[in-house]
Amino acid sequence: MHFASDNTSGVHPKILEALVKANAGFAPAYGADRYSLDLQDRLRDMFDAPDARVYPMTSGTGANAALLAAMTPPWGVIYCHETAHIEVDERGAVTFYAGGAKLKALPSDDSRLDTEMLRSIVAANRNNTDIHGMPPAAVSLANLTEFGELYTPAQLADIAQSSALPMHMDGARFANAMATSKVSPWEMTRELSTLSLGATKTGAMAAEAAVLFDPELIDAFESQRMRGGHNLSKARYVSAQILAWLEDDLWLELAAHANAMAARLAAGLTELGGVLNYDVDGNMIFATLPRAMHARAKAKGAAYHLWCEDTALVGDPETPQMARFVASWSTSEAHVDAVLAAFAD
Amino acid sequence: MHFASDNTSGVHPKILEALVKANAGFAPAYGADRYSLDLQDRLRDMFDAPDARVYPMTSGTGANAALLAAMTPPWGVIYCHETAHIEVDERGAVTFYAGGAKLKALPSDDSRLDTEMLRSIVAANRNNTDIHGMPPAAVSLANLTEFGELYTPAQLADIAQSSALPMHMDGARFANAMATSKVSPWEMTRELSTLSLGATKTGAMAAEAAVLFDPELIDAFESQRMRGGHNLSKARYVSAQILAWLEDDLWLELAAHANAMAARLAAGLTELGGVLNYDVDGNMIFATLPRAMHARAKAKGAAYHLWCEDTALVGDPETPQMARFVASWSTSEAHVDAVLAAFAD
Amino acid sequence: MHFASDNTSGVHPKILEALVKANAGFAPAYGADRYSLDLQDRLRDMFDAPDARVYPMTSGTGANAALLAAMTPPWGVIYCHETAHIEVDERGAVTFYAGGAKLKALPSDDSRLDTEMLRSIVAANRNNTDIHGMPPAAVSLANLTEFGELYTPAQLADIAQSSALPMHMDGARFANAMATSKVSPWEMTRELSTLSLGATKTGAMAAEAAVLFDPELIDAFESQRMRGGHNLSKARYVSAQILAWLEDDLWLELAAHANAMAARLAAGLTELGGVLNYDVDGNMIFATLPRAMHARAKAKGAAYHLWCEDTALVGDPETPQMARFVASWSTSEAHVDAVLAAFAD
Amino acid sequence: MHFASDNTSGVHPKILEALVKANAGFAPAYGADRYSLDLQDRLRDMFDAPDARVYPMTSGTGANAALLAAMTPPWGVIYCHETAHIEVDERGAVTFYAGGAKLKALPSDDSRLDTEMLRSIVAANRNNTDIHGMPPAAVSLANLTEFGELYTPAQLADIAQSSALPMHMDGARFANAMATSKVSPWEMTRELSTLSLGATKTGAMAAEAAVLFDPELIDAFESQRMRGGHNLSKARYVSAQILAWLEDDLWLELAAHANAMAARLAAGLTELGGVLNYDVDGNMIFATLPRAMHARAKAKGAAYHLWCEDTALVGDPETPQMARFVASWSTSEAHVDAVLAAFAD
Repeated sequence: MHFASDNTSGVHPKILEALVKANAGFAPAYGADRYSLDLQDRLRDMFDAPDARVYPMTSGTGANAALLAAMTPPWGVIYCHETAHIEVDERGAVTFYAGGAKLKALPSDDSRLDTEMLRSIVAANRNNTDIHGMPPAAVSLANLTEFGELYTPAQLADIAQSSALPMHMDGARFANAMATSKVSPWEMTRELSTLSLGATKTGAMAAEAAVLFDPELIDAFESQRMRGGHNLSKARYVSAQILAWLEDDLWLELAAHANAMAARLAAGLTELGGVLNYDVDGNMIFATLPRAMHARAKAKGAAYHLWCEDTALVGDPETPQMARFVASWSTSEAHVDAVLAAFAD
Repeated sequence: MHFASDNTSGVHPKILEALVKANAGFAPAYGADRYSLDLQDRLRDMFDAPDARVYPMTSGTGANAALLAAMTPPWGVIYCHETAHIEVDERGAVTFYAGGAKLKALPSDDSRLDTEMLRSIVAANRNNTDIHGMPPAAVSLANLTEFGELYTPAQLADIAQSSALPMHMDGARFANAMATSKVSPWEMTRELSTLSLGATKTGAMAAEAAVLFDPELIDAFESQRMRGGHNLSKARYVSAQILAWLEDDLWLELAAHANAMAARLAAGLTELGGVLNYDVDGNMIFATLPRAMHARAKAKGAAYHLWCEDTALVGDPETPQMARFVASWSTSEAHVDAVLAAFAD
Repeated sequence: MHFASDNTSGVHPKILEALVKANAGFAPAYGADRYSLDLQDRLRDMFDAPDARVYPMTSGTGANAALLAAMTPPWGVIYCHETAHIEVDERGAVTFYAGGAKLKALPSDDSRLDTEMLRSIVAANRNNTDIHGMPPAAVSLANLTEFGELYTPAQLADIAQSSALPMHMDGARFANAMATSKVSPWEMTRELSTLSLGATKTGAMAAEAAVLFDPELIDAFESQRMRGGHNLSKARYVSAQILAWLEDDLWLELAAHANAMAARLAAGLTELGGVLNYDVDGNMIFATLPRAMHARAKAKGAAYHLWCEDTALVGDPETPQMARFVASWSTSEAHVDAVLAAFAD
Repeated sequence: MHFASDNTSGVHPKILEALVKANAGFAPAYGADRYSLDLQDRLRDMFDAPDARVYPMTSGTGANAALLAAMTPPWGVIYCHETAHIEVDERGAVTFYAGGAKLKALPSDDSRLDTEMLRSIVAANRNNTDIHGMPPAAVSLANLTEFGELYTPAQLADIAQSSALPMHMDGARFANAMATSKVSPWEMTRELSTLSLGATKTGAMAAEAAVLFDPELIDAFESQRMRGGHNLSKARYVSAQILAWLEDDLWLELAAHANAMAARLAAGLTELGGVLNYDVDGNMIFATLPRAMHARAKAKGAAYHLWCEDTALVGDPETPQMARFVASWSTSEAHVDAVLAAFAD
């Protein structure tokens, strides 16, 4: 019954095997090994981006911060959604790496950027060329979003057009987005300057690929990555994870499974009277249920996060309370049914 | 013949096995797993430091930078040797994390801090209480040093006494230092406020433990680690590596082997007329040989780094040229003898 | 007809005279002169704060940034209004000085902080003790606000109570706030940890006093001020300005005059059909008039700022357009009447 | 008898007069006033640099830090002398503004950069293109140096040639350097990318001109100046000071006088047995005298700084002790003779 996070699941056996295989002999350090070179080739092909640069890393926060810091001067503005991981869950990493740049966090009705609001605020900031203000530098969004919602290629194109800014994608759940969208990797990334491609939440141990589609960012990114402490010596083990993850579309298979488990859970919770708060496009569900139902499920050991409000569940039992459920590649139908049973009784 | 770095060697099989074992089932993220808790207990015992806090990380640079940033205000001075990794090999990571603090890099006759120079310069900075200057904040040293030399507990005590400052140890080669010194972990660390305990160079995949002996640093360190992107989600896999590394003193066994291989190589190079530039206390050798001998050995495929000068080896063949050789847990006697043969002919 | 800013006015003759007087002979540098010491005594008396520390500076942005950086760790949150000068007009100075801390900019119906929103968001951030989030550190507000509105002591007490955070006041127009509120300096500042007391906009040349009511902040503030380049050598000339400004309540007299001129202008604009967008509590007016009226007034040389929208005035002549008018100590009734006449015709 | 600093002297009457004159009427804020525009024209002419940009400021530390931060990425190296003001007297301002860049402080036999050492260390850093190191970005030197020594144009050309790096000059005592060197302003600055031109120490109140000879730096410099809090609103009063200072070569006259007073003092101290520690090229003297003589002079009220060692003068009376004496535009022959008399008796 582990729906607390996709970080609580383990590593897929094929990825562990790849680590064992990559262990033979000596290899050059800091990404000059053949696994890292292969990974770059593999992703250039996949994204149809022959000049892209690929950097194996172990941290999504590190990838986000070093990429965005390469995309803005210390006095620039990065636009993101107010629920973005970079805004609420990285203890200021982006601002830290970017030397004081501003994260401008925008609200909307869901967890995606509001294109019109973005257009209007970027235009206002761009028109204000006075030295007192801060100039627009970049847009960052996550796909899936922090609340499990998908951006389609069309929506991404709208955002690119409305902001006319370089775009970064936090792809911590890129596999889940791809599995649900059915578009090609190129379609999903053609508007991007940079991508944090995360494998960790979808079956890897600690493996992210920072992808630069814009080669002008190389020097700044490599410098930020290095001084952030994210230029790992034995890089072959990170690259080997991602290669195995990509092999035979394992990544899409694992993500599709997680998405299916989330859909099954969403359907079950809805039947029990739960209200879904966001689109369930991937492996995350935000659902509102009466506090008493949460208390019952928790008492039976259901593991998931209550969101924001009365986490001690001591208030009125009928009060609705939102919760987050995350499925992963290792979530089984039995897990889903067990948590539903815990609510149902 | 791989003597370029201890980072080019692989992962010890027992550590890989531990990863496979740690993979069973779900586990809490961000260090609340039982491997990470066990690791903290294990290191508290080992260092006889019941209040120490232990944080699994994947990056030595990240550990050094986040620890030192917790030990200084943004306007403080951290004293280190001019050859220190934090001074020459981290692209400014410490200054970046510490928000502008100064690394004061001190020269000496070898690669260790000169206690008298340290005493004198710290005293001068401390006496200068004017707001224009920068106050002393911490000392950082590496054991082994970047040039393979050992600090004994007595030398560490001298440094602590002469500076009267909190001390950080970069323990990227702590195992090698311990294997050669024969002192207890407590003796080697009792003067420290913080330690970056590195397992990566001694047989792990990517595993460092940041150890806080001073509990006052917890909040600042955890914040710096988080915003640096070094609070890994699936922490169990890092902790499991270090637990396996410590089990049955595997770490000391691997380090002792590397040290022995370096001693064998040092003896051989000396016999061939090489001059050792620094004490060979662990697994690193700095030796000076005529340029022609380097050219010969390189032509035969010997892999090691020429240091600083004529790396193309195009100058006068008799000119002496220093080089660095690093042995690791996976270096064999055959490797040593092969590289010696390459020089000898 | 100069209503563009209170920064376009000159220096009051008594303040210039004080500079001439302060020029006699040698004086210790960096604030050890008798003018600076007198200023500290004078403000301690005035604020009934015998332990307050006072620092002469030439920059309000510098004072705001160095004070706030002393009140937060690099990972803390400073709450302010979304229209605050520190949020929109200092090119990220606070985040820069504070090493990456977050300015959380809150909306409201006017230009003052919404106490209930502040209470709720601070509580949510405070309850979220997870290392991924950022902890509340301080509240910053301006009095007068950037839109000319007053906080009363009762409102300040509400904000202090609702946030339970240390409070900074940007007092760039503190004199205007005091002149209109009729309360004592102590009443207006008793909730504060720090105050940027600005004299520049009210008749000085370049003179701000950074006031620390909380002595715990001394070391951090002095360090931030120094490394920001705001520890001026010939401090006597800054302190002498502020002493002359305080003498015989010149500051209140100048501010009261500016406020009266603004009131006269506000009344006149209202008569002409203008709509006031914010409370006119001091020397600033935000008023909406048809675009055609602006075009007419501008054509006749009226100097003031159109706010945000169609600054070229090329749209529909009937469209309402907001503008800002700022009166200063040197604004005369004739100036006011002239600008009104320019609109009226 | 005030030889503690050139910061303890007052403002020249002609500069005060200029302030009074500049006070008439309203003027645009933030440097759009006619004094600031005139100043830019005046300095473009003087330096024969028609594209130079000139920014009035009140702080030399602010000018140095914002200029140098515009000349380096956050991971670059700025080379300076180990006695430089930016290295020892600005509490880390440059590193702070530059986001973590390194000040590499070089020793030498005097207070000037050692050209050969600079050439060698810059070449080594430049050749090391590995991402672990930090690339060379700029050279900064002061003219006069912190110890009162002059760089000639020929020496500046040597430094430019040997480093092949953009050069910044801290001209806190530029007037003194010019008065002694007899070269043209163009000759003294033709190698520079940027200059902090200081008037404060030579008779102004608080007035520095940041001069950009390299227009590529405009955006970064203006941004750093703004977020540092150094974009002053009533800029006309700073520019008016410098214009008056330049008028009829007042600046050179005041500097020549200060230099002459220092020469008179140096001659007198030498006669008394003092040893000059550095070239006396301008208005500063570093001289070594027996501790007992210092005690006597101090007892008679002589005001100057003992340098570094036994500032309480409690050691052996015969021990030599270095001291610094600074003459200014307001130092008279009588002041010199009085301090000499205090030593002599």
